[in-house]
Amino acid sequence: MKPRIFTREEIEKTIDVPELIKKIEEGLLLSSKGQVRIAPISMLNFEHPTGELHIKSGHITGDEQFVVKIASGFPENSQLGLSSSQGLMLLFSAKTGVIETVLLDEGCLTDLRTAIAGAVCAKHFAPKNIVRIGIAGTGIQAAKQLEILRYVTDCRDVIVWGRRAEALAAFANKPELVAFTIQTTQNISEVCHSCDLIVTATASPSPLIFAKDLRPGMHITAVGADQPGKQEIAADAMERADQIFVDHLGQCLKYGDLSYAKERISMDKVQEIGAALNSYHRKPEAITIADLTGVAIEDVQIAKHTSYRRSCPLS
Amino acid sequence: MKPRIFTREEIEKTIDVPELIKKIEEGLLLSSKGQVRIAPISMLNFEHPTGELHIKSGHITGDEQFVVKIASGFPENSQLGLSSSQGLMLLFSAKTGVIETVLLDEGCLTDLRTAIAGAVCAKHFAPKNIVRIGIAGTGIQAAKQLEILRYVTDCRDVIVWGRRAEALAAFANKPELVAFTIQTTQNISEVCHSCDLIVTATASPSPLIFAKDLRPGMHITAVGADQPGKQEIAADAMERADQIFVDHLGQCLKYGDLSYAKERISMDKVQEIGAALNSYHRKPEAITIADLTGVAIEDVQIAKHTSYRRSCPLS
Repeated sequence: MKPRIFTREEIEKTIDVPELIKKIEEGLLLSSKGQVRIAPISMLNFEHPTGELHIKSGHITGDEQFVVKIASGFPENSQLGLSSSQGLMLLFSAKTGVIETVLLDEGCLTDLRTAIAGAVCAKHFAPKNIVRIGIAGTGIQAAKQLEILRYVTDCRDVIVWGRRAEALAAFANKPELVAFTIQTTQNISEVCHSCDLIVTATASPSPLIFAKDLRPGMHITAVGADQPGKQEIAADAMERADQIFVDHLGQCLKYGDLSYAKERISMDKVQEIGAALNSYHRKPEAITIADLTGVAIEDVQIAKHTSYRRSCPLS
Repeated sequence: MKPRIFTREEIEKTIDVPELIKKIEEGLLLSSKGQVRIAPISMLNFEHPTGELHIKSGHITGDEQFVVKIASGFPENSQLGLSSSQGLMLLFSAKTGVIETVLLDEGCLTDLRTAIAGAVCAKHFAPKNIVRIGIAGTGIQAAKQLEILRYVTDCRDVIVWGRRAEALAAFANKPELVAFTIQTTQNISEVCHSCDLIVTATASPSPLIFAKDLRPGMHITAVGADQPGKQEIAADAMERADQIFVDHLGQCLKYGDLSYAKERISMDKVQEIGAALNSYHRKPEAITIADLTGVAIEDVQIAKHTSYRRSCPLS
């Protein structure tokens, strides 16, 4: 039996963000209940040009299928007119190991599921009435995070931080972000001092946000630190936060922003997103941080959703 | 750009065993010289039915492409008329991460490259004039090991050990093994006492061959222990062997047959196959054991070979 094979164009037609937000929430909940088995993440780094490969696999107990996701990041691709994110997702029978579906998504589903995990954090952990959104980073994931935030907040006032003026200008003019009013800055304190929801989505090797930058009533979602050698949130900021949410405790202790702070903070204030989704009630003065490393259950959920939607007549 | 996609039927037409033996030798040599980077292996186990997933990825320094190989084993597949081995291989640009070729080989390339690694061991480490070949195991890999051995030895006299009489009878009657004269036994000592080349290819969770079973002048290649919880060669046999060859020292120390013996043997007698290929000279009375866990470089080499051969007019 030949697997079904779908191209990026076919996959993009299936995307239903509100439905995916529900699916990712359900997945994170199952994960925190121990109902998801994930394989150790496999990573490989490349030089000349610089690049990285991440392979994540997971299976929900009792499910008919398991998912393997292969994602790469080659930052210099933009010089070739290619997306820096590339990859594909594969669905296999959990009864026989036979490959059933190949999603040639060229990395777009990985970008999307990461942004949706960010939106889930904003929905559940950020202040109810967000006055201003801050974005750190000007790459694909920074833009995708903002694009998807409109499904969970009415706030359209944004300030974006980046190191290069041209990248900031390009970000502010992205057509998919036209709903937002976007100011730009090369000074991250400006973001920290005016925003109550901040999303950091950079490949920074050293912290961008420190304890001195935090203000009561603020939520930060940090999505950049997805392998050793990356950090966005300083250990002193993690220490000062009242509550820390993590997508996967094991991964975040290993290489998330939490990994740099684990010796100096109380684990009592660290909770998996799935476990907090239905129970966390924000106090007005709280400072909260979500540390996302990207988990296989997100890939499982988006791959299953996409594969299922391709099997049904599309509306 | 869409990847090229090849089916099992198309892939099988490209197979050239003598050429692949050379390619796997070259790959193991490069690996032992530190010119191959491999990602940590990702494994996931399944229940109801029992199954396992192995993901291996590798890149030869400077190569245009890297390879990701996904292989599964679901022993109960045979009840459904399916091969227990399933999987696929993927070739990506090492410059951009873009997927270039999908080899829907349904596990056959993994089976083949493992058998070829066995043939490489027989060619370089077994006695020159093999009197009798012993095979432990009656599954797909046991048969494939024997089938491929005919490229490196003229010996056609075989005894195969298995636990079930029906499986032994089926093995002896496999059409691809018609060149061999095959005797069967349910007593493994019979194999050990009459053979100078033995290949063990089982999923045994406990040792099959002990020090007492070894005889001077004998070579054993053990391919079964490819993840924690599997073992074919007892620690006392590893201790008694004069020389141990491993496909990858790190992996074999972790879960190969070597892992069970590492506390009690001298590491001086352990050598990577790649390092030994051009330098090992067998003494007549030596007892040698090769411990194979399966390495990504083998997948890289067979995937590249297959992809290249599909690009050329086939003779």
